Amino acid sequence: MDDLTHFIGGEAYKGDDDRSGVVFNPSDGSILYHCAYASKTTLDHAADVAFSAGRAWANASQARRLEVIFRMRQLVVENTDKLADLIGRENGKTIADAKGEIGRALEAVEFATNAAQITKGEYSRNVGGGIDTFSIRQPVGIVGCIAPFNFPVMVPLMMTSMAIACGNAVILKPSERVPGASAFLGKLWREAGLPDGVWNAVNGDKEIVDAILRHPKIAAISFVGSTHVGEYIYRQGCANDKRVAAYTGGKNHMVVMPDADLESAASAFVSAAYGSSSQRCMAVSLLLAVGEGTAEKLRSLVVPKIQALHVGAYNDPKADFGAVITADAKRVVEQAIADGVAAGAELVLDGRGLVVPGLEDGFYAGPSLLDHVTVEMEFWKKEVFGPARGIMRLKDLDEAIEVTNAHEYGNGAVIFTRSGHAAHRFVTEVEAGMLGVNVPVPVPVGHHNFGGLRRSKFGDAHMFGPDAARFYTKMKTVSQRWPEPEQSASSSFSLAFPSNQ
Amino acid sequence: MDDLTHFIGGEAYKGDDDRSGVVFNPSDGSILYHCAYASKTTLDHAADVAFSAGRAWANASQARRLEVIFRMRQLVVENTDKLADLIGRENGKTIADAKGEIGRALEAVEFATNAAQITKGEYSRNVGGGIDTFSIRQPVGIVGCIAPFNFPVMVPLMMTSMAIACGNAVILKPSERVPGASAFLGKLWREAGLPDGVWNAVNGDKEIVDAILRHPKIAAISFVGSTHVGEYIYRQGCANDKRVAAYTGGKNHMVVMPDADLESAASAFVSAAYGSSSQRCMAVSLLLAVGEGTAEKLRSLVVPKIQALHVGAYNDPKADFGAVITADAKRVVEQAIADGVAAGAELVLDGRGLVVPGLEDGFYAGPSLLDHVTVEMEFWKKEVFGPARGIMRLKDLDEAIEVTNAHEYGNGAVIFTRSGHAAHRFVTEVEAGMLGVNVPVPVPVGHHNFGGLRRSKFGDAHMFGPDAARFYTKMKTVSQRWPEPEQSASSSFSLAFPSNQ
Amino acid sequence: MDDLTHFIGGEAYKGDDDRSGVVFNPSDGSILYHCAYASKTTLDHAADVAFSAGRAWANASQARRLEVIFRMRQLVVENTDKLADLIGRENGKTIADAKGEIGRALEAVEFATNAAQITKGEYSRNVGGGIDTFSIRQPVGIVGCIAPFNFPVMVPLMMTSMAIACGNAVILKPSERVPGASAFLGKLWREAGLPDGVWNAVNGDKEIVDAILRHPKIAAISFVGSTHVGEYIYRQGCANDKRVAAYTGGKNHMVVMPDADLESAASAFVSAAYGSSSQRCMAVSLLLAVGEGTAEKLRSLVVPKIQALHVGAYNDPKADFGAVITADAKRVVEQAIADGVAAGAELVLDGRGLVVPGLEDGFYAGPSLLDHVTVEMEFWKKEVFGPARGIMRLKDLDEAIEVTNAHEYGNGAVIFTRSGHAAHRFVTEVEAGMLGVNVPVPVPVGHHNFGGLRRSKFGDAHMFGPDAARFYTKMKTVSQRWPEPEQSASSSFSLAFPSNQ
Amino acid sequence: MDDLTHFIGGEAYKGDDDRSGVVFNPSDGSILYHCAYASKTTLDHAADVAFSAGRAWANASQARRLEVIFRMRQLVVENTDKLADLIGRENGKTIADAKGEIGRALEAVEFATNAAQITKGEYSRNVGGGIDTFSIRQPVGIVGCIAPFNFPVMVPLMMTSMAIACGNAVILKPSERVPGASAFLGKLWREAGLPDGVWNAVNGDKEIVDAILRHPKIAAISFVGSTHVGEYIYRQGCANDKRVAAYTGGKNHMVVMPDADLESAASAFVSAAYGSSSQRCMAVSLLLAVGEGTAEKLRSLVVPKIQALHVGAYNDPKADFGAVITADAKRVVEQAIADGVAAGAELVLDGRGLVVPGLEDGFYAGPSLLDHVTVEMEFWKKEVFGPARGIMRLKDLDEAIEVTNAHEYGNGAVIFTRSGHAAHRFVTEVEAGMLGVNVPVPVPVGHHNFGGLRRSKFGDAHMFGPDAARFYTKMKTVSQRWPEPEQSASSSFSLAFPSNQ
Repeated sequence: MDDLTHFIGGEAYKGDDDRSGVVFNPSDGSILYHCAYASKTTLDHAADVAFSAGRAWANASQARRLEVIFRMRQLVVENTDKLADLIGRENGKTIADAKGEIGRALEAVEFATNAAQITKGEYSRNVGGGIDTFSIRQPVGIVGCIAPFNFPVMVPLMMTSMAIACGNAVILKPSERVPGASAFLGKLWREAGLPDGVWNAVNGDKEIVDAILRHPKIAAISFVGSTHVGEYIYRQGCANDKRVAAYTGGKNHMVVMPDADLESAASAFVSAAYGSSSQRCMAVSLLLAVGEGTAEKLRSLVVPKIQALHVGAYNDPKADFGAVITADAKRVVEQAIADGVAAGAELVLDGRGLVVPGLEDGFYAGPSLLDHVTVEMEFWKKEVFGPARGIMRLKDLDEAIEVTNAHEYGNGAVIFTRSGHAAHRFVTEVEAGMLGVNVPVPVPVGHHNFGGLRRSKFGDAHMFGPDAARFYTKMKTVSQRWPEPEQSASSSFSLAFPSNQ
Repeated sequence: MDDLTHFIGGEAYKGDDDRSGVVFNPSDGSILYHCAYASKTTLDHAADVAFSAGRAWANASQARRLEVIFRMRQLVVENTDKLADLIGRENGKTIADAKGEIGRALEAVEFATNAAQITKGEYSRNVGGGIDTFSIRQPVGIVGCIAPFNFPVMVPLMMTSMAIACGNAVILKPSERVPGASAFLGKLWREAGLPDGVWNAVNGDKEIVDAILRHPKIAAISFVGSTHVGEYIYRQGCANDKRVAAYTGGKNHMVVMPDADLESAASAFVSAAYGSSSQRCMAVSLLLAVGEGTAEKLRSLVVPKIQALHVGAYNDPKADFGAVITADAKRVVEQAIADGVAAGAELVLDGRGLVVPGLEDGFYAGPSLLDHVTVEMEFWKKEVFGPARGIMRLKDLDEAIEVTNAHEYGNGAVIFTRSGHAAHRFVTEVEAGMLGVNVPVPVPVGHHNFGGLRRSKFGDAHMFGPDAARFYTKMKTVSQRWPEPEQSASSSFSLAFPSNQ
Repeated sequence: MDDLTHFIGGEAYKGDDDRSGVVFNPSDGSILYHCAYASKTTLDHAADVAFSAGRAWANASQARRLEVIFRMRQLVVENTDKLADLIGRENGKTIADAKGEIGRALEAVEFATNAAQITKGEYSRNVGGGIDTFSIRQPVGIVGCIAPFNFPVMVPLMMTSMAIACGNAVILKPSERVPGASAFLGKLWREAGLPDGVWNAVNGDKEIVDAILRHPKIAAISFVGSTHVGEYIYRQGCANDKRVAAYTGGKNHMVVMPDADLESAASAFVSAAYGSSSQRCMAVSLLLAVGEGTAEKLRSLVVPKIQALHVGAYNDPKADFGAVITADAKRVVEQAIADGVAAGAELVLDGRGLVVPGLEDGFYAGPSLLDHVTVEMEFWKKEVFGPARGIMRLKDLDEAIEVTNAHEYGNGAVIFTRSGHAAHRFVTEVEAGMLGVNVPVPVPVGHHNFGGLRRSKFGDAHMFGPDAARFYTKMKTVSQRWPEPEQSASSSFSLAFPSNQ
Repeated sequence: MDDLTHFIGGEAYKGDDDRSGVVFNPSDGSILYHCAYASKTTLDHAADVAFSAGRAWANASQARRLEVIFRMRQLVVENTDKLADLIGRENGKTIADAKGEIGRALEAVEFATNAAQITKGEYSRNVGGGIDTFSIRQPVGIVGCIAPFNFPVMVPLMMTSMAIACGNAVILKPSERVPGASAFLGKLWREAGLPDGVWNAVNGDKEIVDAILRHPKIAAISFVGSTHVGEYIYRQGCANDKRVAAYTGGKNHMVVMPDADLESAASAFVSAAYGSSSQRCMAVSLLLAVGEGTAEKLRSLVVPKIQALHVGAYNDPKADFGAVITADAKRVVEQAIADGVAAGAELVLDGRGLVVPGLEDGFYAGPSLLDHVTVEMEFWKKEVFGPARGIMRLKDLDEAIEVTNAHEYGNGAVIFTRSGHAAHRFVTEVEAGMLGVNVPVPVPVGHHNFGGLRRSKFGDAHMFGPDAARFYTKMKTVSQRWPEPEQSASSSFSLAFPSNQ
């Protein structure tokens, strides 16, 4: 069993770290390898390397930078199978699902080829007094990227490809559950021609996160993960004068109106709710049926579809979804179900205790469904990161919007309807960052901004989508005047503001 | 002597506040009036009023909102004399300078008429799977605006006109030194047709600032003022999940190259350095002469110009600049001079102890100039908010850039040169948010972003300029699909991301 | 009776023109005044004046230009009554309608205050080889603006305010039916502070249009009017290397689906179809009822509404609409009705032969309605610029889209429906430049582009809305490099393109 | 010897054309193959195929379209050697130069991956009366692309990759001198996954150009080539209601100021002037030395560099440049030299009569240099498309700008100087579309607009760079309202414009 190392300065880096962790294969519960957890010294090394490489990279031309992104795009395409296996092995999601993840990762890399376009400044001629005013975006320096376990390839690539395209260096800390894919990505970046030291990965847990938050050479922090960690990172990052974008939890409501195509809505719910073992921040958590008739019909449509789901190993081609990430994650999901039932929800389908033959030590949770969920229940209030979903029954659109807005999270929300008016109201009134109309998962395409509202995102910037160009750069505004050789500037005491001249 | 009240819900509001402060006329040291300091109860009232008015305003059409801004623009034009007198009386700056301030304020109000243009979202057709994706910007809610004493009209109008144009309600806390102008602005907004309660002003000091920072109904904070307060506001605001932009101190370096038009540079320095008693965050603090010869020539050019400056009452038409804001401010400036001399600077011109005949109680500080200032001196390190400026002597452009970047502040910096190359290097390498080439004060025109870097600005957003439209709105991204009635959504387990369909 | 003169160089200009025309008051058929028609010599004078004034104006700062626009906006507000009377007297539309026109004119002037924002160029740093690339928009020079009779104030202001805000000079040729309002606008521009000679108006007919098309000093042509004239202007303008935008005819279809709110749709149709005597390029021409039931219900709803319409003098406060522009226009409308009936349409309401008591010589046409209009009829094929409208009966949305697209014009088209899907299909498939969903007249708000497709617009540019900034400016792209003094450019023979360095 | 066929519907297409032409290898004068010239029937076939394929492609999602562009980019990279050989063989340029061309072609393909970003519409919420307004860009249909001989790969790819990325179908007519590369590109597009029929190439000369100009199914024309053809195409295209962008001739002036780095300027001149046998529309034509001293020094610097140039076969690795395109082109260049000398220019270097040993039938023209060129000479007035360049001697910047602006062409112009002021004046005052400061060839990077002014470009649109997204799409503006079910639209007769509600 190989141990996993860091990736610093273009190569595997073995520090003198004295802590390490274990990486499991969730599909069978086996140990894949040990992974060293970076010490402060290792981080210092990475930061020194990144700082020096980053300075040169910041001065590299746009043409040079984008060439690397294009090559990286091609390498991701060519290595899809390898990456999918890496994802599935460590994360447990199915190969098909992993390939879907890579497809979205690719979209992010592809959008990073737009960096020159979206980082353009503005130029004005003779705003006043012969002055031209223009703006420049320059890279911020080193970006610390702290990634979650649920998208081992997509989130690291989304974070780092745009950061790099904008001229920054990065130090990525992948989730300690899935560090393997990142190590491989480091090799691909190198093969793509990225100068050594611009892209680095260090492994570890909270200890290294804290070191990143305090490191004076790190200018910005990208985080995707759980809310309590994200909030901590945001607060600490701000206190240390770092630019921070922290994308955190979600509890995504799917509202179905009586006029919707219920068959479509039911299919959409099942895939969006249980796909990837529900371990997506954009997974649908709750099915909000408007009207009792709608609720009854939807329930009768979704139950057989859920019962037909096959749970299995990541490389089982028949599996619809795989294991959850850890044994502990499985326990948490099962506890949430128990709590929901205790609070009065009806347990329609119980996925607890699922055992996959031959993989008895895998971390499997079968699909569960609770009906009659209400806003008083913890099952509604808390994000459940596993395949236990709920049905809520509401009387009208007003109540559906009210319930959706009552939740602390505002990541995604969708409505299924045929009515232009209902869709318009939903989009206007629901306080979520990503909204969908007749789409199961409202993840915006890569050239639009991704990000939630309220406690689903800390910090106002968007790190994915076109506004990422703002997050990963700082702006200067220049007022420039080239007077005639003989022309003297006047001395004005009233107010020496140039545009008044 | 009238007492000054708050302005809440479209009218003067007298709360049951038990604290108050005194507002001086700096030109003669007299007391203008007492100003009640808002209690928590008063703020609660303002927030309730703003919340309710703001909800309606957020739903008002763009056409309706902009009409108010256009009317306000006209009212500011028509009330220039009245506003200039209000400014001068409380702040001490000359009427001519106050009118310059109003001109810049007007520029901000005028740019707010661009709000519909700059808050546009983006629209994409059929990004994948028949989905259209678009983005919407909606107002954030209530903005708390905390303004400084040095621009009693400009900063409040810059902050509030764009916030209002974007559909927010505002609660302005003007500086407790200059609350009068804001009270008058409230009346103008009303006259412009703004619904009562959208624009409110509460008076007070740190106590009310703290209440604003903690108030659950306030969504965003705009601050302009001193660094230690701004840093506090930023940290507290972030910790309370508010969006914060805090613009703080500056120490603006003016680099003069040997090839510059020295006569122009000298005139530019004198006006940009001493104008408004140097009480501008964008005032030039230091003259960096590149080369000994340049230094000698510049010194010989600036000294007689400074000696010719006339200091007097705000309404003295011969005055080049007026008093500083308080007796304490005068003491601080004089102490900074003493410290500079003690540290080895040469006191070329000493403005301490200036008495304006007939106005012996006014807070006057004459123009002072120190030469041979170095980076070791506190005089270089600290922002001096009064008419004491310094000359530094540097050997080349490299050193000038290095010194400029060594300062903790990165607000503005300018270079005077005829060389395209020198200007380009300066703009590329100097870490300041607002840069100037052959302009005395690099305040960008209103349709470009205003804001510093490093410790001159806390928070990455820009609250002035086109990016203000981002600061004052939140973004939603919508993925919308209108399937054929008969068309069913497929259920995909691999990854239910819509753009892959 | 005063004769009307040209307005050149900031003043009334009486040339030695030997031709003139008569301006009528359509409400009573009386002659208002004679209007001189500019000779080639008069145009030469105007062009010389505009050229010289325009050169200075092109070099004026953005701040200076926008100040004039803001003042003009205020003057239009203050002179609304005067302008409304001028409009009504010459055009025949009611005072209320004229004020509506002025409101839209104001919107255009207001949007011109965005000129500095929307004419910004783009700025890129170090695209390759140390080169910065940026773009500049500069005014094109003199714009010839040829305006129609139906909006005597709105179109001239829409054309000229943005042209001027972008730094051009203009020579306006108003319609020879309504020259009075333009003469008054010239005075307002002067009062707003526009330098003499930047805004000029010359009166005349085709002879002066031809002279404008051939004049070497005129760089661009804005035209709004009839299709055969617009097509001629476009062809001739292109042949003379002028930039041309020609907005021409329309035949705007209103599709009503069975699920629509028919009462709303009926009201919308009546106002959008007959308002301003139907003399708007964006007037609804045809009501396309989808389904026989819809047709019957709509007909029964619209007929009494149309019967209740009151036709009268422009200053009759009870009038819903007024006279058409000329006696000839009245004859053309009446002939179109006769042709429609002859071709098989059912004449539901016959407005021919209307006489308004006391105004027997006015050019009145009462509201007419034909049912069972089909695509074979001339009544469908030709634009009818007067209050004769038709109903078409279609079986489904497919047919409605097909009929709408079969027409040669593609100006506006609207659908009334509650279905998101129907609206989406309509917007996607209908080939018109301005589309509406549940709105009677899809004229976009001023900060969006106005313009048709197919034979409703000649030339691809938009002269109204944000793209007007492109039409009224020319673009330069600059590649700039400031090498180190010692740095030599390499000589590359393979391909000396800079970004490859 | 193979005959060359058209490429229609994804395959080689052999029509029943009765005309054909000969394609030469300029390096040795041999015949490469015969190329059929498309008949009207062949074009009709291509248009039918393109129309049908284009309709499906227009409805393809953005994701689908961009995937093809990314694949095509990779195929161009992988086929660089093959493409370079195709270019050199037919065009005569050296392999190194051909690879440079491919590099720029690649830049254009890469920028086309930004199509989804740059074709975004704008979205406004509640502009008035509850109406949302947004804009959509949709493909125009079939684009006819008429390409020149001097960039056999770059121009076809620049034209077609963005047109295709925006959803159009294309019919390319490559130059009849260099049709081979286009045939190969057709195969690559197919390999990239582009549906058959979206990209088509037809060969021929003026006859097929005329057919394209008149074809009712072709919506837009992109042209790059000589001025007289471009002007013809523009006029005919406009008369046939096609959108046209025609990029034509250039006469690019390089101004060198006395303060410039003359050694750099001299190197820049030689490569930019003679590279690719001067057969580039952006080649430097004239060296404008400001001051006699500058002229003398520059001349002494450039002459030995030019004398050292090696002219040879396209695949001669020592060659700096190769043959001109035809024997006739050679004669034209030599005649231009003779005319210049006859008009009084000094012939400094005479490249006429050059024979490359072993390649006696190749179309070679050696490098020639004339000094003391003046604006009276035809040598200055006419574009010389071959390696004969001139020196002009001017007294100051004023005269240099005046001369540059006196020319009928306004493609590119560059200045070499160290002065910010001189550069600023040059950029402000020179009427050329592409300007350079201290760069030899001011071809903008792919994400900025490429295009000349005056008689260097017919039509205002830009077909290369970000504005290409406008040229290759048409815009619709939508005003949409989703009223409450119970909410009735009001009927307003004054003016039924929605944003006033």
